[in-house]
Amino acid sequence: MILTVTLNTALDITYRVPQLRPHTTHRVTDVAERPGGKGLNVARVLAALGHDTVVTGFAGGVTGTVLRDRLAALTGSGAGPGATAPRGRITDALVPIAGTTRRTIGVVDGSTGDTTQLNEPGPIVTTPEWSEFLTGYTRLLREAAAVALCGSLPPGVPVGTYAQLIREAHAAGVPTLLDTSGEPLRRGIAARPHVVKPNATELAGLTGSTDPLRAARDTRRRGARAVAASLGADGMLVVTSQGTWRARPPRRLAGNPTGAGDSAVAGLLSGLVEEVPWPDRLARAVALSAAAVRAPAAGEFDRAVYDELLGRIEVTEHPAAA
Amino acid sequence: MILTVTLNTALDITYRVPQLRPHTTHRVTDVAERPGGKGLNVARVLAALGHDTVVTGFAGGVTGTVLRDRLAALTGSGAGPGATAPRGRITDALVPIAGTTRRTIGVVDGSTGDTTQLNEPGPIVTTPEWSEFLTGYTRLLREAAAVALCGSLPPGVPVGTYAQLIREAHAAGVPTLLDTSGEPLRRGIAARPHVVKPNATELAGLTGSTDPLRAARDTRRRGARAVAASLGADGMLVVTSQGTWRARPPRRLAGNPTGAGDSAVAGLLSGLVEEVPWPDRLARAVALSAAAVRAPAAGEFDRAVYDELLGRIEVTEHPAAA
Repeated sequence: MILTVTLNTALDITYRVPQLRPHTTHRVTDVAERPGGKGLNVARVLAALGHDTVVTGFAGGVTGTVLRDRLAALTGSGAGPGATAPRGRITDALVPIAGTTRRTIGVVDGSTGDTTQLNEPGPIVTTPEWSEFLTGYTRLLREAAAVALCGSLPPGVPVGTYAQLIREAHAAGVPTLLDTSGEPLRRGIAARPHVVKPNATELAGLTGSTDPLRAARDTRRRGARAVAASLGADGMLVVTSQGTWRARPPRRLAGNPTGAGDSAVAGLLSGLVEEVPWPDRLARAVALSAAAVRAPAAGEFDRAVYDELLGRIEVTEHPAAA
Repeated sequence: MILTVTLNTALDITYRVPQLRPHTTHRVTDVAERPGGKGLNVARVLAALGHDTVVTGFAGGVTGTVLRDRLAALTGSGAGPGATAPRGRITDALVPIAGTTRRTIGVVDGSTGDTTQLNEPGPIVTTPEWSEFLTGYTRLLREAAAVALCGSLPPGVPVGTYAQLIREAHAAGVPTLLDTSGEPLRRGIAARPHVVKPNATELAGLTGSTDPLRAARDTRRRGARAVAASLGADGMLVVTSQGTWRARPPRRLAGNPTGAGDSAVAGLLSGLVEEVPWPDRLARAVALSAAAVRAPAAGEFDRAVYDELLGRIEVTEHPAAA
């Protein structure tokens, strides 16, 4: 199985309004609620690709209960849009906490299609809760083919936490993918994760360079074994010990970019555990990312778009660095 | 006791962000949750004024449970900011429903203090649930000194509902105050409520006139026995069978206007059941409204500001209409 870690899970709420006008009152025309947090989205895409996944992290309070109920409903249904392919199972190994799982509100402006995001900070995790998580994490690593460490840290969790979780995975011989930002990313990279998946903004924040190739190479020197830099609608750049590749979708797809990065992570991870070569992994990540843009919510992708794009992603090898 | 009806109760959530910028992602710095819906706010102010109140309407689902828990906590505490005065009790007579009580999100922009409001539409109320409410309402009217009918109608509740509830109150000999907008207000007025409390926008929508005095007189002709028109920071105008009065606060108070109207309703209602003359009722409503602007949330008011302002509200009688 593939393990995904989401320390700051969220109940993702989407509101549609005809037009968002600050400092006025809006009647929300449509409300949707989904289990969220990057690692949960990654798990849903992995399951759709046929991989059994286990999700861990924290859930608590009223929103934590709703999140787990909705996750169970997704898991139990065994089918989704276009899900004729075999699907993997999602197992809930979230650790219960006394605090209340955060909500995120995405306000979709019907006049532009743009989303305004409001993210609650998340609950305080106590020391005993953290110990319980670590014990479970170490146990789950024994069965894991790979682990993804995803998203922000909740308040009170030390900034070096991802570095610690990466070292635990190294000790268990499990490859790691890290998808976070800021100081937790910087500290995590120093612990030598197998893959990091920053976007251009995160890379620039980390390295000070706005040139993705230069920044990705710098990130490898800082410790990451492979750097998969997402370039939004322009595809992805990957710098590894075996080479450097760039992948582009055949066309730009309009839609909702929320969750595109999580689909890319699922593509990279599934490629890693299936031991497909880097150029094919990259093509899969870019096709999934583009297909996610065509789906209504994070954690979902348009299977027909994915199938159509997969063979049409242009992957080019970059000459070796000087 | 005073009965308040809130058919579309809400869990009121307040988010603080440093600055609201549409189409970007925000970390919420502070989250607060309170039981909401106009009638619940009115009840909290009435209780602070020493009146026992009963709240009815609907509550259901996860948010309904949170709302009732928080309402019970408020009721049980028996004290609030500055609440040295005797306090009334709040009794929860909300009718449980299968649907889920809506949330409202108020996003406070820290750079301006302005609030952007996102209101969910609310749950569908089934016919058996509506029957259960009506039976309870008719029973509660027997003990009520007055009834306030507050706020929007949830989806599926007929637009003529407030008119029906006003007729039931007439039959029980209980005076009514109606605080709603749009077609439910128009239909309700035709059932001859004792008081309506529209703001200038609602009056204009109802009558087509932007002159509050003219619009209020027109609203009386349409059926309302008294019209208390709230004029925001400029105070209030009341047109009754006994005369027309205008009340102004001694100064404009900066703050959060959410809930000022609900405090004004509580002032009018408490004055009605205490049989204080109209000019004093009006002064009370305007002082409470201004004191609510100085409180952090709807349903609360600054007692010191209220005590200071009450004797200083300027009430002038308007010459009789031609």
